[in-house]
Amino acid sequence: MIELPAPDRAVLARRDSILAELRAILPPGPRGEAVIGDPTRLKPYETDGLSAYRQPPLAVVLPETTEQVAAVLRYCHENRIRIVPRGAGTSLSGGALPLEDGIVLGLMRMNRILEVDYADRLAVVQAGVTNIGITQAVADDGFFYAPDPSSQLACMIGGNVMMNSGGAHCLKYGVTANNLLGVTLVTIEGEVLRIGGDHLDAAGYDWLGLITGSEGQLGIVTEVTVRILRAAEGARAMLAAFRSNEVAGQVVDAIIASGVIPVALEFMDRPAIHACEAFAHAGYPLDAEAMLIVEVEGNQAEQDFLLGKLKAICARFDPISLRVAETAEESLAIWKGRKGAFGAVGRISPDYLCMDGTIPTGELPQVLRRIGEMSESYGLQVANIFHAGDGNLHPLIMFDANDPDSFRRAEDFGADILKLCVEVGGCLTGEHGVGVEKRDLMGVQFEAHELEQQRRIKAAFDPAWLLNPAKVFPLAGNAALAR
Amino acid sequence: MIELPAPDRAVLARRDSILAELRAILPPGPRGEAVIGDPTRLKPYETDGLSAYRQPPLAVVLPETTEQVAAVLRYCHENRIRIVPRGAGTSLSGGALPLEDGIVLGLMRMNRILEVDYADRLAVVQAGVTNIGITQAVADDGFFYAPDPSSQLACMIGGNVMMNSGGAHCLKYGVTANNLLGVTLVTIEGEVLRIGGDHLDAAGYDWLGLITGSEGQLGIVTEVTVRILRAAEGARAMLAAFRSNEVAGQVVDAIIASGVIPVALEFMDRPAIHACEAFAHAGYPLDAEAMLIVEVEGNQAEQDFLLGKLKAICARFDPISLRVAETAEESLAIWKGRKGAFGAVGRISPDYLCMDGTIPTGELPQVLRRIGEMSESYGLQVANIFHAGDGNLHPLIMFDANDPDSFRRAEDFGADILKLCVEVGGCLTGEHGVGVEKRDLMGVQFEAHELEQQRRIKAAFDPAWLLNPAKVFPLAGNAALAR
Repeated sequence: MIELPAPDRAVLARRDSILAELRAILPPGPRGEAVIGDPTRLKPYETDGLSAYRQPPLAVVLPETTEQVAAVLRYCHENRIRIVPRGAGTSLSGGALPLEDGIVLGLMRMNRILEVDYADRLAVVQAGVTNIGITQAVADDGFFYAPDPSSQLACMIGGNVMMNSGGAHCLKYGVTANNLLGVTLVTIEGEVLRIGGDHLDAAGYDWLGLITGSEGQLGIVTEVTVRILRAAEGARAMLAAFRSNEVAGQVVDAIIASGVIPVALEFMDRPAIHACEAFAHAGYPLDAEAMLIVEVEGNQAEQDFLLGKLKAICARFDPISLRVAETAEESLAIWKGRKGAFGAVGRISPDYLCMDGTIPTGELPQVLRRIGEMSESYGLQVANIFHAGDGNLHPLIMFDANDPDSFRRAEDFGADILKLCVEVGGCLTGEHGVGVEKRDLMGVQFEAHELEQQRRIKAAFDPAWLLNPAKVFPLAGNAALAR
Repeated sequence: MIELPAPDRAVLARRDSILAELRAILPPGPRGEAVIGDPTRLKPYETDGLSAYRQPPLAVVLPETTEQVAAVLRYCHENRIRIVPRGAGTSLSGGALPLEDGIVLGLMRMNRILEVDYADRLAVVQAGVTNIGITQAVADDGFFYAPDPSSQLACMIGGNVMMNSGGAHCLKYGVTANNLLGVTLVTIEGEVLRIGGDHLDAAGYDWLGLITGSEGQLGIVTEVTVRILRAAEGARAMLAAFRSNEVAGQVVDAIIASGVIPVALEFMDRPAIHACEAFAHAGYPLDAEAMLIVEVEGNQAEQDFLLGKLKAICARFDPISLRVAETAEESLAIWKGRKGAFGAVGRISPDYLCMDGTIPTGELPQVLRRIGEMSESYGLQVANIFHAGDGNLHPLIMFDANDPDSFRRAEDFGADILKLCVEVGGCLTGEHGVGVEKRDLMGVQFEAHELEQQRRIKAAFDPAWLLNPAKVFPLAGNAALAR
């Protein structure tokens, strides 16, 4: 269970007048009410992709313009009301978990594509445009937006910026930060800042970098300028299965060392292979300990050239099976099991936690061995899926949410995995952010004075800690949160 | 001329005792004195790559360890003494320009390679290691460090981090920020922060991003962890010359749109072609208005494939000349003129200012036309060299430093070019930073409240504005600088 800051009693007592005042700022429009106070209608907002934690908010506001966001923030600033921003609510770390005395500021009505500029290869969109929506807007002209989180059909670009989201293809194209050119940020004081723009680099501090991944704590992003890229002619995958995690880890290192940059390099361990195969019947080798899916792109000749190189590398490591897609259809068949991984695990176990840590790739065999030992001692199954090229590990810990003890053990198991990531020289997170889930583990990654310096950055934007205050940092010892 | 903050009279008056106290912190060692106070020995520190501005510092300290840097900063913090950090002093924006009442903290003795890890493809080095020194340390094993500023033989990685340096090859490999994994940062309070590390992403804010390009204002970087990359088998260039800047600009767009990512894509205008040809006799076409140098890399087959594609694109735009290097030697011949550009311009003109702005590539023809008009009205020659793939423009404005009026006109001309960059949707800087040179133009790029928010970030690290305080932000209205 998660601790949230003590609510401000004065704010709770003023709920009705706050709702009325917010309605004066955001009157109902063609899209209906813009301020939601009815408890039944608040229900969908009480949790996000980390559904283990729930908390109804004080109210939800649904602005449609940057000016409306600024007006709401100015009001909250004057009245010392906390704010939790929300895109599609797909956060896996509880980044959009509400506060009892806080307003959820939903960006879903800010879903317009404002500009597409092919000459400069960029798109300007409102923060509530979905990730896939950007690609859809430019696909007919042969372009795409590169970061592709699993939730890309639903998740919104504003949330992607706030969590610095990645995806299976970020080995080649990078995460959100690498594909972002600018944002419009509204501060808690209601000031509108234009950060970055349609050009390389920025004068002054790289605060675009700072805003990226700031989890809604420094301001609310309302517009986003992203780089769009020319789509490759096509892509094809290969599947290679090996006798041990050690050998598959060596293959990953050999591929990276060869200089070939695949678009994706996915690693699945035995439990993940079995779960996915039972679900998707993709023809995965059930006798393998570890399996890689490697995808390359380009025109036919480039694909052939790169797959030939990769096949030769894999062949040196005595693979159990080696399957190179000759067509786009065969490629889809290879991906089928992997893409259904979450559904597959959901079929085996009523509930699971999807963890997210990053390790130096060389540590993979050791980390998988120790996760296996923890799985035994916690009595909980785990399947490991790994964006191997980036060192980004996604253990899926299976538990039963109706059994509080099972949930508690899953939380502890997850925390132990993340501590292990830090211990081997890695990091608490890869692409899901800290949110509430990893907040109390930040002390494992950082010294007290390092956390203090980060809190000072937060306070330089939001001295009263009104913006998403219960996230990222441990609550203990934070005087700004005492009410 | 540049305005510097009024010196602190009390600090100037205490100079002798400050020197003595610093010497107690940093006693002489095997490498000689670590605290320099003798005016003759301070001479080399009074300017940097922007040699138009000069100011001797109060003293220079030359620490060798992170602990020594922390001790110096603690002392300066307690005694309210300003600090200007310095690597090799190659800054082109005056980033290392001293203050009369400030100590220059030189990092040149911190020049050890601490660790090279090929499995995880990273190197950990002290901040005073030269840019080329990193590549030299790993070249025998087939690796390299990608960002390659023109000053790479001299400039130090700590300075590269502070200025987020780029180079001719950053089209493919990105700038310093894209090749940086972690830093050790010492705060003005003498706290040692480990930021980032040998893994992707970071928990908490992306303060590694914030530190990168912070121009010595948030802390002193003493150790740096960089990504090293497997070097390609080889590289080859082609030269293509066109009838107009417009056409050459269209070719740049066509190359980028094709999906081919060259390692370098350099644009030279007629004055730059003529200056370089006169100096280097590289066989450049003197009848061309604009010339591109495009370089690709890979094995022989990859080079052939990519150069074939690029040649076909160029051929569609009626080139005046098209020369594809068949060998590494022919490639060097193509680069010869470009690499000597600064020397070439130096031969024509006793002095020049190297400007650095970024524009959307589509604006190139318009921007070059308007720079040409300015050149006439200021009565000063200009040659344009352009990292065209990134939109990073380097106009070289020629003037005579012995003629104060000529220098003043060159400054105004440079400022007008940078304003033009902002006006067309670009940015004041590409890879040289703001320093003192562009400090007073920050108001062209940013609104007052945007600058104020950036100053708050500065103050969250350094409330008394002791660290490199005269840079990046306009002095006017900054109460923290009044003494």
